[in-house]
Amino acid sequence: METELVTWLRQRLPDHPLLKLGIGDDAAILQLAGQQGCVITSDLLTDSVHFDLESAGPARVGRKALAVNLSDLAAMAARPVGVVVSVALPRAESLEIGIGILEGMLPLAEQFDLAIAGGDTNTWDNPLVISITAFGEVTEHPPLTRGGALPGDQIVVTGSFGGSILGKHLDFEPRVRDAMLMNANYKLHAGIDVSDGLTLDLWRLAQESGCGAVLELESIPVSDAARSLEDLKSPLDHALGDGEDFELIVALPPEESRHLLRDQPLGVPVTRIGSFVPEPGLWQQTEEGRRRPLDPLGFMHRQGL
Amino acid sequence: METELVTWLRQRLPDHPLLKLGIGDDAAILQLAGQQGCVITSDLLTDSVHFDLESAGPARVGRKALAVNLSDLAAMAARPVGVVVSVALPRAESLEIGIGILEGMLPLAEQFDLAIAGGDTNTWDNPLVISITAFGEVTEHPPLTRGGALPGDQIVVTGSFGGSILGKHLDFEPRVRDAMLMNANYKLHAGIDVSDGLTLDLWRLAQESGCGAVLELESIPVSDAARSLEDLKSPLDHALGDGEDFELIVALPPEESRHLLRDQPLGVPVTRIGSFVPEPGLWQQTEEGRRRPLDPLGFMHRQGL
Repeated sequence: METELVTWLRQRLPDHPLLKLGIGDDAAILQLAGQQGCVITSDLLTDSVHFDLESAGPARVGRKALAVNLSDLAAMAARPVGVVVSVALPRAESLEIGIGILEGMLPLAEQFDLAIAGGDTNTWDNPLVISITAFGEVTEHPPLTRGGALPGDQIVVTGSFGGSILGKHLDFEPRVRDAMLMNANYKLHAGIDVSDGLTLDLWRLAQESGCGAVLELESIPVSDAARSLEDLKSPLDHALGDGEDFELIVALPPEESRHLLRDQPLGVPVTRIGSFVPEPGLWQQTEEGRRRPLDPLGFMHRQGL
Repeated sequence: METELVTWLRQRLPDHPLLKLGIGDDAAILQLAGQQGCVITSDLLTDSVHFDLESAGPARVGRKALAVNLSDLAAMAARPVGVVVSVALPRAESLEIGIGILEGMLPLAEQFDLAIAGGDTNTWDNPLVISITAFGEVTEHPPLTRGGALPGDQIVVTGSFGGSILGKHLDFEPRVRDAMLMNANYKLHAGIDVSDGLTLDLWRLAQESGCGAVLELESIPVSDAARSLEDLKSPLDHALGDGEDFELIVALPPEESRHLLRDQPLGVPVTRIGSFVPEPGLWQQTEEGRRRPLDPLGFMHRQGL
């Protein structure tokens, strides 16, 4: 099977100017502008955990696996260059699933001018695994890490939050161009993408920066999907705790934040939802102007991470 | 669990001068000498297919997963720089297995001065999967591809072949330094590492080079392990068909081959086993000086590839 899939790939994959040697040798050779360092991220997705192959189908699953990796490059404000894709395919229908995955990936790869440099195809008697490693370049602006937020910085997010389980977790747009645009035009101090939930990922960013974060809950952009979910949790709880929004959280000084919010330079709204403070931890601003602790670990444990 | 494993990793993983940003952010930043291109390879290994976790234990499995990737860099005569490691760990004992895998990897990473740049840790209710992507640099000598062999070139191999199932498939030495040394001092035209069997991988190299290969079967270095296997196949059949020797096959002109064989510059023997010819296909030289076809696909189908 692997031979058939590799043959299909060699015929189907477009050339790329930076890919000096592609599929069919022991390794690929990719031309990276290495001066500033190569940005590398790797995400492994498994059936029943990150997707449901049966209901989503291989194409949406393949697209998601690539988009998740691109979202990590966006979180660094890096310029995507290429990927390698490795799979463990369920033996039954392995060729069909393998081709489906790649067909779901290709439009997104084309959209971001990505080289698909290679990978590894395997079959086995267990559920589907997709492992992608993505490479990007540091742009002329410093990469966006989790560790640079300062007390006084504003917390700004792209898009809206919650209810991604209704579809966005598969079909989201990785905020690659938005991140590069913001990083080029505003003095961003730190950034992260929201994969495990707004509160949890904000807490991680604050922790890496050695400060705390105060959320103004009434400012959180709650998605229509979160509002349409009819269960015991409120739409706001969904927005705060649901995973896989794949929006960005950035930290920037008040003056820069004002410019960014005024300009609204992205195709998606940017919203201020709070600010960073010297005291470690995660807080909500009360109506009386005080702070009450928020527990990000509550979300983490609920999600079984 | 992932959090515990990541915490363990952040304490345990050594710094590396080329790793500008390591574990704990959305992506890693690795300084690669990008002028000549970055060499990238990716291998995904699964329990019961590439190893047996229960009998081998996590440390030997982790070492193998890294060594397989290094062998692919060796096949390109590239200088290893770093890796990212992603795993899907069986939920029961996931932390113990995850730590065992990394502990098995670390000595090999140290031996080749590799940066472990990051990865992704997951748990699930299925068998172990390890997916590694390795990065190398092209040296000042051209990379060794599969496509450069010319008719008249000699076929030279490192080490001996067959019976790797007895232990070598787990504990082999990736021929990284041997490949760089040969590529620096002799005019190599092409190379490949033997992962799926001597005959099959030689046939692949010949096919990519647009020529054929004639084997002199009496010259094949048959390993002690192949001789000690007591089954229906001969030791020579094991040497020709068994997978996972992870030795190198190189193609070079007769004069260069004579120098290499005379010098024996590696810690492991190099042996001439035949030559490349204009006619596509794989052949054995008969005692009467004629050629008889050899079927590499026979091995491939037996191995279920």
